[in-house]
Formats: sequence, C-alpha cells, structure tokens
Amino acid sequence: MCQLLGMNCNVPTDICFSFTGFQKRGGGTDIHGDGWGIAFFEGKGVRLFVDPQPSAQSPIAEFVRHYPIRSLNVIAHIRKATQGRVALENTHPFMRELWGRYWIFAHNGNLADFYPAFDGAFSPVGDTDSERLFCWLLQRLATRFGDVMPERPALFAALSGIVAELEELGPFNFLLSNGDCLIAHCSTNLAYIVRQAPFTVAHLMDEDVSVDFSELAGNRDRVAVIATVPLTDNETWTIMDPGTLWMFHEGKVVCVS
Amino acid sequence: MCQLLGMNCNVPTDICFSFTGFQKRGGGTDIHGDGWGIAFFEGKGVRLFVDPQPSAQSPIAEFVRHYPIRSLNVIAHIRKATQGRVALENTHPFMRELWGRYWIFAHNGNLADFYPAFDGAFSPVGDTDSERLFCWLLQRLATRFGDVMPERPALFAALSGIVAELEELGPFNFLLSNGDCLIAHCSTNLAYIVRQAPFTVAHLMDEDVSVDFSELAGNRDRVAVIATVPLTDNETWTIMDPGTLWMFHEGKVVCVS
Repeated sequence: MCQLLGMNCNVPTDICFSFTGFQKRGGGTDIHGDGWGIAFFEGKGVRLFVDPQPSAQSPIAEFVRHYPIRSLNVIAHIRKATQGRVALENTHPFMRELWGRYWIFAHNGNLADFYPAFDGAFSPVGDTDSERLFCWLLQRLATRFGDVMPERPALFAALSGIVAELEELGPFNFLLSNGDCLIAHCSTNLAYIVRQAPFTVAHLMDEDVSVDFSELAGNRDRVAVIATVPLTDNETWTIMDPGTLWMFHEGKVVCVS
Repeated sequence: MCQLLGMNCNVPTDICFSFTGFQKRGGGTDIHGDGWGIAFFEGKGVRLFVDPQPSAQSPIAEFVRHYPIRSLNVIAHIRKATQGRVALENTHPFMRELWGRYWIFAHNGNLADFYPAFDGAFSPVGDTDSERLFCWLLQRLATRFGDVMPERPALFAALSGIVAELEELGPFNFLLSNGDCLIAHCSTNLAYIVRQAPFTVAHLMDEDVSVDFSELAGNRDRVAVIATVPLTDNETWTIMDPGTLWMFHEGKVVCVS
C-alpha cells in the first residue's frame, strides 16, 4: 500500500514542511520505496514531478523539498507497488485533462479484478489499478455531465454515487483535484488537519523538525493537510471514517458524505 | 517567437549538453524569457518540467541541466509570448493522452485567428494558439483513426495531410512525440543533426562548452537533435525546408514530406 499527501489552501502556500516528513516515508522511515510523485497546481497549470526512485533517495525529491512552490492544491504520493511494475508510467500522481482543466489523481489501495470497459476518452498508459480507477472516474464524470464542468456540489454528489459502486472491490483511498477543490476518499486510512489562526508550532513525526506557523502564516490563511497517517505528533488530526468522501475548498471541508 | 529543441535516439541518452546551450537562449543570449519547459519520455511515462520563469534564471532548469535523465525522446521549448499571458498553463510543452500513450507537443509560431471547434475530447486549458493547435491535431487524429493507434507510416501520412490545411494561417513550427517517434514540422525555421559513429567534438554556439562524444557514446548509438537554430558552431546541421514534415525514429529520419 502507498501513502497519500494532499494540501488545499485559501492562499498559495508551500508544502515544504509536510513534504519533509512525507518524503522520509518513501524508503526511509517506511517501506514505500517504489517511486513517488507530487503535483502542484499554479492557476490552471500544473507542475508534475514523478520519479520511480524511492523519495528518500531521489534528487528530484530533494530539490522539491528545498524549493518552495506556492500552490492552492497539492497532491503527493509515495508508492509501494501492488499492481504494475516499478516504472515511470505507473508512478502517481496521474494527470488528465477534462473540461479544459487538468485533473490530478493519486490512490492508495488495491482494487481486485478492476478492469472496467473504457470508451476511449481516457485510457490508462501504465498497468496499475490506480490509473484504471482514475480513467474510469473521469469517464463516468464526462458521461454524466457532458461538455460542461459541473459546480462543486454537483461534482461532489456525482462522485459520491460513483465511489459507492466500488466499495466491495477492495480498499481505495484517493485524492483528486482539478485545481479548484480537492476531493478525498477514505476507504481505510486517511486523516486531515486544518491549520488556521491562532497558529502554533508543529513537530514532524518522521524527522525532528519543527516549524512555528505563527511566524510564517498570515492571519487569514487557512490550510488543510490530508495524509494517510498524521504527519505531526503534537497536533490533533481528524481521522476520517472508512467509507467517507470529502471535498476541501479554500482550506476547509465544504462537503462530506 | 519561441525556440524548440528535440532529441530522438536509438539508446536512452541525456540531453545535458544540448540543453546547456538551449537554456542560455531563455533570457540569456536571446530574448525568449517568458517561460520554458522540457519533457522526457522514459518508457511510456513522461517527466514534464514546466516553469513560467526565464530558463536562464530558473532553478528547475539548473537542476535539469545537471541531472542526466536518459531518454529516447525529449522535447524542450523556451517561450516568447505571442498569444496568451505568461502563466504556467501557457507554458510548453503540453501533454495529453491518446490511445493509452502520452503525447507531448511544443510550438514555435503564431497562428492568426485559429479558433477551431473542439468536440470535447481535447480542450485547451490555457489560452495559446499553440495549445489549441495541439488539441486540434489530436482531435483530428482521434477522429481519423478511432480507437486504435496507427502504425508510424499511417500516422505520418495523416499528419502530413492535416498540417497542409494550416499553411495559410501563419508560421507553425512544432515538435510532437508519443514516446515512440518524434515528428517535426518546419514552417519557417528548424534544423537537425544526426550524430553517430565516428563521433567527434561538438562546441556550443551559446556558451564556450565542448564535449567529445567519442568518449561518451557507444559505437552503435545514434542521436538526432532538432532545434530552431543550430546549437553548435563546428558541425554541419541540415536546415529543413519550409513546409516540410519529418518523422524521426531511433535517431534517424524515417519519413519526410
């Protein structure tokens, strides 16, 4: 199984602190050494970094950790291969375009015998259940809404119905974003925290690093961080219930079901 | 106008030497300071780096220049904005998926009044003529070939017909790759060189850097490099004729029309 990290904010924020702890889990403090990736939305554009090397040893991960990229929506993933060999095309997050927006997706889980029929609009490039799931979700959304991107509530309602069809197939925690909102599905393990004023000091679980957000953040800043396992050991994370779907926008939960 | 750089090889090769000279043109030795990007195919996967900063000052470009990524197909671009503001979503190369393969595209030119009708399969995210051209080319290919990717000769013949329709609209030099072959369209300016045994010393035009390929390359290696303007001053580049389309595969020209 893999590890997920997401961030959704109301002002462009860098993810260097959270990524520092997260990166260690890719072949360092944990066993997820089969590649890693991270995607940053910047406006409607995306910076996508993927690397089949363990993140703890990846020069690109080192670069990303030290280079502050400010973003409203970030999705990162470190991989423990279950389906699909270790290869760049099987490395999350995956990217596609729908309705003139890029969509980014990362998955933690294992869907048994999930080989849906594709109509050709979105086809997997690699051979993971994760990319098949992503293509199938987008195909379902495109079929459901046609040529026009729905508003957030309609998007959430549609996804809520679609994921309910898959509950029997196996675990599938995922993060999905179109740069506007971030959608998180908790199947087995996912937790989140919303940081806002008054900000405090946070201390990483995977490395002895602290940051005092009161020195860095503005009074109105609000940042939601979502992770498979909480990243800090001195803050209260909300553990999501299995079988729940969440939508984050501007650093807070706007829908849950 | 922008600058293009492409590489197509028969063995995975790094582009550090060519990129060193090319990078200088992005706000250094030339005026193309409105962003840059580079895409490396690795198997069916892609590493895509895009940055709206001038490449000569971009920390990501510095990283790429020093980190050898070996690839069979590479496309790079430095931008002088004509249509579309300086923004990440307007930064080349662009990426889409068709037939379960990623496609990478970069454009140098300016298509006047090019607002084709899109059927929804591929929609521009930004607002450049370049991304509209890319989406339109893929839409035409998808319409022409349906669900199955054609063989190289059929792909080339189809593209040859499609680009002929655009000759009146303005200059459009482009590079396109699906990771298998690299297609180059010369509308005004494009040149290429094929390096193979016996290898010699090459010297960059934009920076006083030389490399002796006889020390680096194997006897059977073959590398085609395509650029808007030749990158070296002591080798013989082939200047492509305006209105020609070229397909490179395994480091050599396999189709031209």
